Amino acid sequence: MSKTPDSAVRTYIAQHRAAFLDDLADWLRIPSVSAQPDHAVDVRRSADWLAAKLHETGFPTAEVWATPGAPAVFAEWPCDDPRAPTVLVYGHHDVQPAAREDGWDTDPFEPVIRGNRLHARGAADDKGQVFFHTLGVRAHLAATGRTTPAVHLKLLIEGEEESGSPHFRALVEEHAARLTADVVIVSDTGMWSEDTPTVCTGMRGLAECEIQLHGPDQDIHSGSFGGAVPNPATAAGRLVAALHDEHARVAIPGFYEGIVELTDRERALLAELPFDEEQWLRTAKSSAVHGEAGHTTLERIWARPTAEVNGIGGGYQGPGSKTIIPSSAMVKLSFRLVAGQDPDLIEKAVRSWAAEQLPTGIRHEITFGAATRPCLTPLDHPALQSVVRAMGRAFGQEIRFTREGGSGPAADLQEVLAAPVLFLGISVPSDGWHAPNEKVEIDLLLKGVETAAHLWGDLSDNWRDAS
Amino acid sequence: MSKTPDSAVRTYIAQHRAAFLDDLADWLRIPSVSAQPDHAVDVRRSADWLAAKLHETGFPTAEVWATPGAPAVFAEWPCDDPRAPTVLVYGHHDVQPAAREDGWDTDPFEPVIRGNRLHARGAADDKGQVFFHTLGVRAHLAATGRTTPAVHLKLLIEGEEESGSPHFRALVEEHAARLTADVVIVSDTGMWSEDTPTVCTGMRGLAECEIQLHGPDQDIHSGSFGGAVPNPATAAGRLVAALHDEHARVAIPGFYEGIVELTDRERALLAELPFDEEQWLRTAKSSAVHGEAGHTTLERIWARPTAEVNGIGGGYQGPGSKTIIPSSAMVKLSFRLVAGQDPDLIEKAVRSWAAEQLPTGIRHEITFGAATRPCLTPLDHPALQSVVRAMGRAFGQEIRFTREGGSGPAADLQEVLAAPVLFLGISVPSDGWHAPNEKVEIDLLLKGVETAAHLWGDLSDNWRDAS
Ligand SMILES: [Zn+2]
Ligand SMILES: [Zn+2]
Repeated sequence: MSKTPDSAVRTYIAQHRAAFLDDLADWLRIPSVSAQPDHAVDVRRSADWLAAKLHETGFPTAEVWATPGAPAVFAEWPCDDPRAPTVLVYGHHDVQPAAREDGWDTDPFEPVIRGNRLHARGAADDKGQVFFHTLGVRAHLAATGRTTPAVHLKLLIEGEEESGSPHFRALVEEHAARLTADVVIVSDTGMWSEDTPTVCTGMRGLAECEIQLHGPDQDIHSGSFGGAVPNPATAAGRLVAALHDEHARVAIPGFYEGIVELTDRERALLAELPFDEEQWLRTAKSSAVHGEAGHTTLERIWARPTAEVNGIGGGYQGPGSKTIIPSSAMVKLSFRLVAGQDPDLIEKAVRSWAAEQLPTGIRHEITFGAATRPCLTPLDHPALQSVVRAMGRAFGQEIRFTREGGSGPAADLQEVLAAPVLFLGISVPSDGWHAPNEKVEIDLLLKGVETAAHLWGDLSDNWRDAS
Repeated sequence: MSKTPDSAVRTYIAQHRAAFLDDLADWLRIPSVSAQPDHAVDVRRSADWLAAKLHETGFPTAEVWATPGAPAVFAEWPCDDPRAPTVLVYGHHDVQPAAREDGWDTDPFEPVIRGNRLHARGAADDKGQVFFHTLGVRAHLAATGRTTPAVHLKLLIEGEEESGSPHFRALVEEHAARLTADVVIVSDTGMWSEDTPTVCTGMRGLAECEIQLHGPDQDIHSGSFGGAVPNPATAAGRLVAALHDEHARVAIPGFYEGIVELTDRERALLAELPFDEEQWLRTAKSSAVHGEAGHTTLERIWARPTAEVNGIGGGYQGPGSKTIIPSSAMVKLSFRLVAGQDPDLIEKAVRSWAAEQLPTGIRHEITFGAATRPCLTPLDHPALQSVVRAMGRAFGQEIRFTREGGSGPAADLQEVLAAPVLFLGISVPSDGWHAPNEKVEIDLLLKGVETAAHLWGDLSDNWRDAS
């Protein structure tokens, strides 16, 4: 029987599986917690380790890039065919804090394999998912007999994702010339479940603001003045209430203007996912669903823009009571955005809406943080088709589609590099990102390797077709 | 020229003015700060000092009454005519905290006279206003040649008013038999101004509650779950917004049921007061008025019930942002009540209103604190007429009417003793209650003495007429 490329890839992976897991375990032993200053040295060590490993893997270029915070790793392996497309893989090598006493069964930085699971902080988020690209590209070369990847392959693995990527945008802008890519592949998300392999087609964007409301110059007595002057805490409540209409739609004028609505096909595909609302509610630690009328829960969390109150405060919050009209109040809002929404226009809309809501006598200030744009890959995008085919070969199953409700630095890559962003992740919800006993399913990790091994050839072939 | 009773009173007061002020200064030197545990000994010292002084004044009975907190002083001076009415004077001998560094020009507990002003913590609130009753009753006896007051005179001077009178209700209930009175005179309020002497005819009541709102069992990620589960901070805002309708009327069903509306005469009298809204706004540290449509500012603060947010909180309130749907939120509300409103019915109305406002998936708990009932003296009440006449003789001016927007322990006396509550105070807004450089205008203090000197005879005479 002639060896198919698929079986050649599988054979190569099986032969190198043990070394691959050993190497990953070495990396996982480095507690690269970007949020904890005393681990700064470990984050640097993690970057050095990865750069060395990428060299060893065969990347001719593998550099540690400094930032004002933790360093990133950049690696590049050009294709021998200059006409090949350029792919930039994004991931991160820093991890969430973890301590045995948080509820870990074993040391979070001493990887342990139990059955099919590799437990360690970072196993799934994100070292495991970065690392499958190393064995992936080797399997790709071995199975095809190539000496260079079928695409110009670049990796950018940042070191501050778990700290909010404060220097990522600037890093990408600084190195934009070396980072140019035709496609960005983000390997920092997951799939629906072990049984239902999926590809994520988009993330929501994010705009955040804090609204400070000022009433009396100091707290005043609610007996002496109550009922006769505007109360900033009341104004804060009324502002929050005005965020949504009775259908739980965002009531800020212009908010939905220009959004890319779900197509009928996308709605149908979402509806096909084996969604169990009761189970989802348990994950959401909530006892009821609540959201925009006319949309399912999955549509609400993945494909609809939102306005959420992240914090509200004003006046006396201690035990007992205090009969005051508070001097000030504050509301922190975040807006998740979908394709077609421009954070700058949202900021404008929020500013004029807020100004109109507030009564005379309440001064306000609105501060917006840095926004993240939404990203969305159309279902018929040729690169997305490549990802679906590569996953399909690895999983031997139909690949379905999800989206990601959260927002991430992927949007910066999309914007600065003007390249479409695709997602390739094999993590599953039970992996416990940011939680004790984080793990990765070893079988799925190897499916990730296999997908990566198939992806570069498919992308290259179909890129040529497309152009 | 025969000596009129009025000039006899004035002469007596003039003769004893220096000793009166010296005695008051001695009392003011005792830092009887009930809110500060290290001053507990001083509050006891203040009670002992006052009891001794009342003995010296002539009260056959003057006792210190213990409470689980700071002690009160009770004194009694029966009239030789058993048919005379019984009057209970209420005041307090504890004071607000004060320290030089808060902005006092001199030591707050070292009284100093500058011009017509006596500066010290407690000068107006409330030692000065308690103390004018001592010289008042002596002047009453001297001018009338009586050996006992024309009424059965009782004093109850509590020691925890500035700490919220936590044990006052129980104290009054415990000693109800000895406190029985036909009329209660509260000397712990003020007048409109130096130029416009007034008598207060009522105080608003107070009901307070805290509403805890619970959503997810823990903070959840607003990217993963935003838009699809109820957010307790949003619910808190919507609850607050539902408190008032678009006319700033309280929108809780039943809230206004049964209230005693202002009569046309009362509205006209209030409108006659020389109210300067600009100046009032400066006192309120506010830049605009805002309140129930169809009512003036004075009506809103004195005669209309209110709903105010004293505190609101939920989610992340620190610097920057946190993309969460908070697990819980909290609202502290206070309701000022007017005559005809029953705190128990208000509590019921608030409870059913709140339950109806909240979406499925938001659990809530409401805790009500102890309520204070409103009190209101009808303008034609004979005892109120006596106060007006006594003040008129002292001030030589028409006495106008105010009300008090706040709420006080007077309501407990009204309720437990089933006696009407009147107010006799000579403090003016510039006295700076609870503020640095608190003072009392010495001329007004002596007008208080004079009013008290006239009041007992008038009350006794008209009481006989009335019964
Ligand atoms: Zn991650
Ligand atoms: Zn007082």
